[in-house]
Amino acid sequence: MPYIVLDHHLPGITGLLEYSKASAQPIRDLTQFLLRGPSTLSETDRELIATVVSNGNECTFCTTAHTAAADLLAGEHDTARLVKKNVEIAPVTEKMKALLQIALRTRENGKNVTEEVIDRAKKAGATDLEIHDTVLLSALFCLYNRYVDGLGTSLPSNPEYYDVLAERLVNHGYTRLPQGYEHLKK
Amino acid sequence: MPYIVLDHHLPGITGLLEYSKASAQPIRDLTQFLLRGPSTLSETDRELIATVVSNGNECTFCTTAHTAAADLLAGEHDTARLVKKNVEIAPVTEKMKALLQIALRTRENGKNVTEEVIDRAKKAGATDLEIHDTVLLSALFCLYNRYVDGLGTSLPSNPEYYDVLAERLVNHGYTRLPQGYEHLKK
Repeated sequence: MPYIVLDHHLPGITGLLEYSKASAQPIRDLTQFLLRGPSTLSETDRELIATVVSNGNECTFCTTAHTAAADLLAGEHDTARLVKKNVEIAPVTEKMKALLQIALRTRENGKNVTEEVIDRAKKAGATDLEIHDTVLLSALFCLYNRYVDGLGTSLPSNPEYYDVLAERLVNHGYTRLPQGYEHLKK
Repeated sequence: MPYIVLDHHLPGITGLLEYSKASAQPIRDLTQFLLRGPSTLSETDRELIATVVSNGNECTFCTTAHTAAADLLAGEHDTARLVKKNVEIAPVTEKMKALLQIALRTRENGKNVTEEVIDRAKKAGATDLEIHDTVLLSALFCLYNRYVDGLGTSLPSNPEYYDVLAERLVNHGYTRLPQGYEHLKK
């Protein structure tokens, strides 16, 4: 049971974004820009950052949702599974490994990002903007994970929910739930 | 030295908000709504939440800035100093103590918010919306603290900087730096 009264048809973040629409709008805008806006990082790369951070924070709803989105974008299930297990053995580029390590350090505490991990990313070709976006994406998912778990939100009763959500996140992004998506209610 | 090239006149969050204006806008909008929008929590109460979370994350820039804002709003220095030391001995209401404890639990991890701390807040008269806003405020400052420290931003060279910043945050809020505030550059 969530700690506050939310629409019980809307699990995880979805009920919170309906509960407080005024705060939801800038959260949606920031997420859409960082995960789907113009970037030299692919949408899959950015979903993988969201996935490892949510996984590190042990947020079941966000980890499952962004794993499903990353899997759908990548067309396979191995990459997201392996980055959650150990970034260093995952089938991603050296640049992505370095950026994922920056995201994981940021998750712990911003102070844990060291010159060493930044240098690794720069040597692998990461730009300032890619490093910036990685840190801010990690910070954003530290917000989401705390928002979702701090209010005790519920999980969907049907695990297929996440596949429907992922299809929406991949094809329509993070703006408001469009008409015709009532089936996204659990 | 910050890890990416930022305007060296702009310390802490201020250089980041100039670096990436597209992501800055929704961050500013969310902050303005949560810290200055309509609420049954006073602006001082909300600045105290920002202060204890930033202090818990050991983010020097954010802690000093929001302590200065809380002090200016309260007209004294004791409350912010004491909430950082120990919420339970601070001169705030029982409801605020309970909400500050929720903010501190959320800071650690959303999962650390328990039914017990929520019940304490509700018994002290906290509404669902106040609990919601407390969790989201804590989550937002977990984003800010990581953004500021994860990119290694610099501190102002002159400690009086924070008083000027606090005056601006109290009198003008969290929207863009207005004309005439060039002296806020360090």
